[in-house]
Amino acid sequence: MMTMENRRPLILVANDDGINAPGVRRLIDFISEFGDIVCVCPDGPRSGQSMAITMSDNLRLTRLDDYNGAKMYATTGTPVDCVKLAIYEALDRRPDLVVSGINHGSNAAINVLYSGTMGAAFEGCAFGIPSVGFSVTSHDHGFDLSGYERFVKDVVAKVLAEGLPEGVCLNVNFPSEPTPPTEMRLVRACKGNWSDEYDKHIDENGEPYYVLTGTFTNEEPESTDTDDWCLNHNIASIVAVALDRTVDLSTMNSKLSQSLKLVKFE
Amino acid sequence: MMTMENRRPLILVANDDGINAPGVRRLIDFISEFGDIVCVCPDGPRSGQSMAITMSDNLRLTRLDDYNGAKMYATTGTPVDCVKLAIYEALDRRPDLVVSGINHGSNAAINVLYSGTMGAAFEGCAFGIPSVGFSVTSHDHGFDLSGYERFVKDVVAKVLAEGLPEGVCLNVNFPSEPTPPTEMRLVRACKGNWSDEYDKHIDENGEPYYVLTGTFTNEEPESTDTDDWCLNHNIASIVAVALDRTVDLSTMNSKLSQSLKLVKFE
Repeated sequence: MMTMENRRPLILVANDDGINAPGVRRLIDFISEFGDIVCVCPDGPRSGQSMAITMSDNLRLTRLDDYNGAKMYATTGTPVDCVKLAIYEALDRRPDLVVSGINHGSNAAINVLYSGTMGAAFEGCAFGIPSVGFSVTSHDHGFDLSGYERFVKDVVAKVLAEGLPEGVCLNVNFPSEPTPPTEMRLVRACKGNWSDEYDKHIDENGEPYYVLTGTFTNEEPESTDTDDWCLNHNIASIVAVALDRTVDLSTMNSKLSQSLKLVKFE
Repeated sequence: MMTMENRRPLILVANDDGINAPGVRRLIDFISEFGDIVCVCPDGPRSGQSMAITMSDNLRLTRLDDYNGAKMYATTGTPVDCVKLAIYEALDRRPDLVVSGINHGSNAAINVLYSGTMGAAFEGCAFGIPSVGFSVTSHDHGFDLSGYERFVKDVVAKVLAEGLPEGVCLNVNFPSEPTPPTEMRLVRACKGNWSDEYDKHIDENGEPYYVLTGTFTNEEPESTDTDDWCLNHNIASIVAVALDRTVDLSTMNSKLSQSLKLVKFE
């Protein structure tokens, strides 16, 4: 029995919406059967934190009451800080899986780059641990997430069984139609970007300030092999994403590549 | 004359060490001959901010005194916020180039992911603008940067002339030996990671807190085609890095790829 106990996978759960967000609680509910769960999340919202790390402030790690069998911790840091603090301080062994989310808001397309949810997944990946981020397009914390349970379980079971290639993690996004999706596809991030990103306001002293907003435009709305297309057609999307961002410039722009390849001054 | 004036390239300068860091001032000195310079930087240090964006707080953009012919602005935001605010609010036309830095600290290897300097470069890239981040391995704000001038000018001249492939920006790092480098190479990010990342302290109430520190280990120290190897041999490094992180899982792990390709539930 002891041996069996010890063989249960250890799963680290993180997010960027904070330890009290419904998304992370549902994620724990969905995957608790797969292993021992330790959850280390920010003590409040940290959306849009990307892979930010806290370099100058002191970090705190606070044990909270268990939730559904999971050990719960809050940190004062970013999602990446949560994964680092978990691995160095909160966990008694190396985790077999890092899952992040379920984020309240889409992390499809270019959002993957700004996402704190995916920041935590990339950090797990940097430690060489199979890592998956889950997000739902709805920002409504009251949105019913139960329709995603079978997809979350499917992905977690497969990744626990098969692992992931070195330096690759998964970005899973769910649509938020009234009827849950019945299908999930492995696709790529669509090309697209945000525009009109600030609302300009004037304060009581006549000074301007800016609040982030904006409109996302999919630049290839007809491409059926993209995350954004899936989400617009009530299909869950999986995009495999790389930690290493190096590209071989010589395959893309030979003239510039040649002129930058080796620069010598005497 | 008017036409010639209007043809001068517009260069946006950003950083993560803040508007008063020596690195950004030297960068402006080095490249002022190439065009009209507008500099939009955080109002204080924002190291390790990656591609973080400010989602809930109000942002301020403040015009400061010009520096060496450059228009200078400080923001209350992250490096990515600086680029966004510059493009939407501070600039009167689309910039021809975004340069970020010169960062006081290495952004080679995995540091590129956490770097606010490179966050600004990636954001410029997201707008479709050729973008380059410059960093020096020394954290000493008093370190003499003059030996890098010819390399900065060389890269800026080439990128202004040739552009960069869509979705690719450059991560340039300089070693900080007493004798400046005479060579710069186009290479790849080395494999490696940080360990022992926290110093644990106990406060006056007996409660622990954590401060980020750590040791970087290059996992392939003999690979001469990497940024870390170059920097350890007094050679400046250029790594071309991609905005889009999508990878084709089917080329890496066919079994998992096959099982995730299409998941259907009735």
